[in-house]
Amino acid sequence: MTPLPPADPRDIASLEPVLIVGTGLIGASIGCALTSQGVEVHLWDLDPANAMVAAGRGAGMLSQLDPGDYRLVVVATPPGAVAATVAERLRWHPSAVVTDTASVKSAVLSALRETELDLSRYVGSHPMSGTQYTGPLTAVPELFVDRTWVVTPRHENSAESVERVRRLARLCGARTVSLDTREHDTAVAEVSHLPQLMSILTAANLRHAQRSHLPLAGGGIRDVTRIAQSQTGMWRQILTANRPAVREQLSQVREDLDTLIGVLDNPDELESFLAMGRAGARSLGGKHGKEMSETTTVVVEIPDQPGALARLFADIDRLGVNIEDLSVEHDQARDAGFLSIEVDRTRADDLRAWMREHHWGLRS
Amino acid sequence: MTPLPPADPRDIASLEPVLIVGTGLIGASIGCALTSQGVEVHLWDLDPANAMVAAGRGAGMLSQLDPGDYRLVVVATPPGAVAATVAERLRWHPSAVVTDTASVKSAVLSALRETELDLSRYVGSHPMSGTQYTGPLTAVPELFVDRTWVVTPRHENSAESVERVRRLARLCGARTVSLDTREHDTAVAEVSHLPQLMSILTAANLRHAQRSHLPLAGGGIRDVTRIAQSQTGMWRQILTANRPAVREQLSQVREDLDTLIGVLDNPDELESFLAMGRAGARSLGGKHGKEMSETTTVVVEIPDQPGALARLFADIDRLGVNIEDLSVEHDQARDAGFLSIEVDRTRADDLRAWMREHHWGLRS
Repeated sequence: MTPLPPADPRDIASLEPVLIVGTGLIGASIGCALTSQGVEVHLWDLDPANAMVAAGRGAGMLSQLDPGDYRLVVVATPPGAVAATVAERLRWHPSAVVTDTASVKSAVLSALRETELDLSRYVGSHPMSGTQYTGPLTAVPELFVDRTWVVTPRHENSAESVERVRRLARLCGARTVSLDTREHDTAVAEVSHLPQLMSILTAANLRHAQRSHLPLAGGGIRDVTRIAQSQTGMWRQILTANRPAVREQLSQVREDLDTLIGVLDNPDELESFLAMGRAGARSLGGKHGKEMSETTTVVVEIPDQPGALARLFADIDRLGVNIEDLSVEHDQARDAGFLSIEVDRTRADDLRAWMREHHWGLRS
Repeated sequence: MTPLPPADPRDIASLEPVLIVGTGLIGASIGCALTSQGVEVHLWDLDPANAMVAAGRGAGMLSQLDPGDYRLVVVATPPGAVAATVAERLRWHPSAVVTDTASVKSAVLSALRETELDLSRYVGSHPMSGTQYTGPLTAVPELFVDRTWVVTPRHENSAESVERVRRLARLCGARTVSLDTREHDTAVAEVSHLPQLMSILTAANLRHAQRSHLPLAGGGIRDVTRIAQSQTGMWRQILTANRPAVREQLSQVREDLDTLIGVLDNPDELESFLAMGRAGARSLGGKHGKEMSETTTVVVEIPDQPGALARLFADIDRLGVNIEDLSVEHDQARDAGFLSIEVDRTRADDLRAWMREHHWGLRS
């Protein structure tokens, strides 16, 4: 895991002491990140054993301060308990900004609005990370490094309240993104909740398959169905909280599915549909949102000499560029062979220089 | 990659010399595997540059024998050309068993039946492997090691013909599975073609998403949409060839999708649906079809000593068992903590012995 970046001491001074309420994987990992940055953190959990384990992982102290002393309270309980806990903590900690880590924001806000509390000190947030595990035992300080942490500020929040939550995210090494509450819920329905359900649908369909067919499963279906193995109890809460946005996504897919069934007999239209999927997958870019770079093609002449190809492969291998695709073309007129090498655009010049240096002919 | 297993000399003697027709990634990799096992392999490709590259990778010789000398001909052309090429080779090579590597078998067989050739020497097969690349440049002898290679024998085939194709698969290090032609196509629709289209549908749906939402994409959607990036031209051919089975799978999913939309407002029914997906994903088992083993729980008492948890984690880490899940329980009556560790059933006794050896108390 990438280590935490160094903290700005002003970030620390402006938000400690911090209280974390709910010390599962997320709460305990936030605690571990903050304490390793030198922030004073206190822990509370409905289940004392959970808080004890979190403290054992280095997430903070079990002792509690006077309720008025906290500057930031992070509510990281299971989704169903978030709104009530935030309301309670707004009442108990008059000097604190209260944030939460729930992955659906509208439901929490609606429930809070029914309490008629002043919500100017509540700033919603959603750290987008997690592992296959739950509970504080697998908490690590690096869980949020380079991950997206959405903050959902509202007009009634003061700039200082919002900034306190952004500092929290920065201290955990995350990249902050600000979104309107409702827009956040649409975005997570698109990029997280719908994919989860598509994985579930794919995996559920295997109930119709004979057991003897399963050995034919390769890497593809394993990738598609990996997240279908997630905890059903947690997803039940998330999907229920975000069902208007989830329903809209499922309806869109239902239309596409009908279109797809309709074009199965028309290879050209089918391929256009496949291309639309390919474009969508590529729009996600590289790991953790790094833009997928464009590629360019470098064409090298294959000389008519014994062993030429073997030497050519060896020279390309030694430069160590990441090859996206390879193909061989044959020029009938000149009876010459060419090797087309598709590489990241930023590395193409390196590859060209390297090939020239090693006496290979390039086609410009 | 796992190296090729040693070959049985009788396997080699009974099928060489081999002719590979179509030296793309699959044909060239079969050639590389066979030559590295000591089998005499000859190569042919419509594009001489392709065959030249395959020979350069060690897939076999470019020289051709007398057509009557070959004992096994492997047709590994693009899907659209398989049936015509198999027919042609059955005519040209009277002593050879002819097999192909197409990923849909009914379409090939139907086309061959229209030729009114004697098909007793044709045995269909489908080596289930591949990479993101195409073409012979990335061919490797280990491509099929521990992968499934489906053979689709028919009544008219002699036992010796079928066995020759099974030997081919064994020499490439693959595990053979025999399936009826139509059943094979149903099975690949279930475990490969449907997941491909579910990945496409998930990725295509991103066209509705605002660009500013994409940074929220995490590992889940990347897993689900990874295969949507595959070559659209190849999938157009595969899906078109298998469209009756693919249509049936899509219709099943369409019904499930309607069910899912219907249960969104009912958390219990929603969770049952999610559980059906989870069971499906788990039915696939581990990597490359290795049965997903059942887990069992080992419970260790957490002593009431400072640093006990840290020492406990360290001791578990050192044994290096793969931990499937962890949780802490608290015994209110005894005021004691317990750590539940879920591990592969085959490793549970090791873990228990190890923990006892390191003086930890176990709850039986």
